[in-house]
This record gives sequence, C-alpha cells and structure tokens, in this order.
Amino acid sequence: MDRIPILKFGDCLLVTIQVDMHDELAMSLQEDLTAQIAKYASRGVLIDISSLEIVDSFIGRMLANIAAMSRVLDAQTVLTGMQPAVAITLVELGMSLPGIKTALNIERGMELLKEYVKQEVDAEDVDDTES
Amino acid sequence: MDRIPILKFGDCLLVTIQVDMHDELAMSLQEDLTAQIAKYASRGVLIDISSLEIVDSFIGRMLANIAAMSRVLDAQTVLTGMQPAVAITLVELGMSLPGIKTALNIERGMELLKEYVKQEVDAEDVDDTES
Repeated sequence: MDRIPILKFGDCLLVTIQVDMHDELAMSLQEDLTAQIAKYASRGVLIDISSLEIVDSFIGRMLANIAAMSRVLDAQTVLTGMQPAVAITLVELGMSLPGIKTALNIERGMELLKEYVKQEVDAEDVDDTES
Repeated sequence: MDRIPILKFGDCLLVTIQVDMHDELAMSLQEDLTAQIAKYASRGVLIDISSLEIVDSFIGRMLANIAAMSRVLDAQTVLTGMQPAVAITLVELGMSLPGIKTALNIERGMELLKEYVKQEVDAEDVDDTES
C-alpha cells in the first residue's frame, strides 16, 4: 500500500485515511489530491479520519496543508469522523485546525459540502444577474 | 490499524479496502459489517477495492462471503473500483463472483444501490396495496 485512494463522488472527492501517515505517503496524498481536484474540477474534499486513534502534529499540519491547497484550488475541505480523544490531543497540541470545517460523520460532512457548493453557485448567479 | 472503517452513508454502508487482508482482519470486517447492517438497518453495502492491486482466492472468497451475509440480512452488495488486472486474475482463478454486483466507480455503485433500494420499496408498496 503506497497510496491512499481518492474516491470521486459527484462534485466532491472522498479520502478515508486508515493507515499511519508518514512523510512519503503524506506527500503523495497531497500530490494526488491536488491533481484530482484539478482534473475533475471538484468543489469539495471530504477527509474521514474515523480510524485514526492518534493524530500528532505532523498529521495535523498535513491536514491543514491539504485544506489550504484545496482552498486555493477553489475546493472546500471538510474533516469528518474525528474521535473525541483526537480532538483533545489536537487542541492540547495547540492545533485547533483553523480553516478546516469539521463534521461528525460523512453524511453530515457531505451535507455541509453540498450547502457550501450551493451557496457558491447562488453567489455566482447573483453576480451574473448584477453584471 | 486493526480494523477497516465502515462509513454510514444514508441507507448504505461504505467500505474502502486499502490494506492487505489477512484472516483476522477479514473476520473483524465481517463481524463489524454485519453488526452495522443490523444496527442501522442498511439496505446496501458498497465495497471499494480500487487500491487493491492483487486479489487472491482468499480475498475473493471473503468478498463472496460478505455479499452472502449481507443478502441474508436484506442488504445488497456492490463491489466498485476493480482494477482490470484484478478482473483478469479473478476469472483465471475461476472466481467470477456470482451474486455480487459490480460497478466501475463508487458513483455508479451508489446509483445501482439506490435503484435496488427503490425497486424493493416499490415492490413493498405493491404488496401493501394488494393485501
């Protein structure tokens, strides 16, 4: 296993992180994800970390980086399935993940992304009407 | 990593297999999946194997077992993301996976499951009207 699969789901991409991340895997995930956002013109990225029991500052930084990269490619990132212990650890590490939206499970995460995509489309419609 | 996460998605459960399966992991997946089907009264199971480059007879049997277990629990199984080489291997191994529906990617897989769930509901409606 040398790559984390990225599943296309309508307008969104779905990534479930199941294995311990290391430098190389994190780099390949960033590359693959940005490439797929560009390829499919995706509007949202949903990252599920429900099977991660430990999130250290390396993974926290990686998630923040992915969210920032997605944002400049015009895609919103939602992090789902965080375990309570992980939330405690992250805040204790001083990483409150600014700029990343979170949801309890992928259903709510998808709803959040759909709302975001809809808002964007509505805003574009308004722009079109005004111009 | 000692468990494969199972994501609830509306009426369906989503499993992405990313790691090499061994006996223990396969057993725990079967247990978790059947427990979750019962817990959420799920109508469909979507198993994505896009990151598996090798599927041997053990995994083939495990997938067939999961599909059979799901069926007796009244849930349909759809297998998605099979790589071409895996399809060749499976058929050469004499495993054409009878009883498992397949789809090219999870989008199409979800459509297939939705159609199946809808058909079932329609059939139940007809039964209700007749009785």
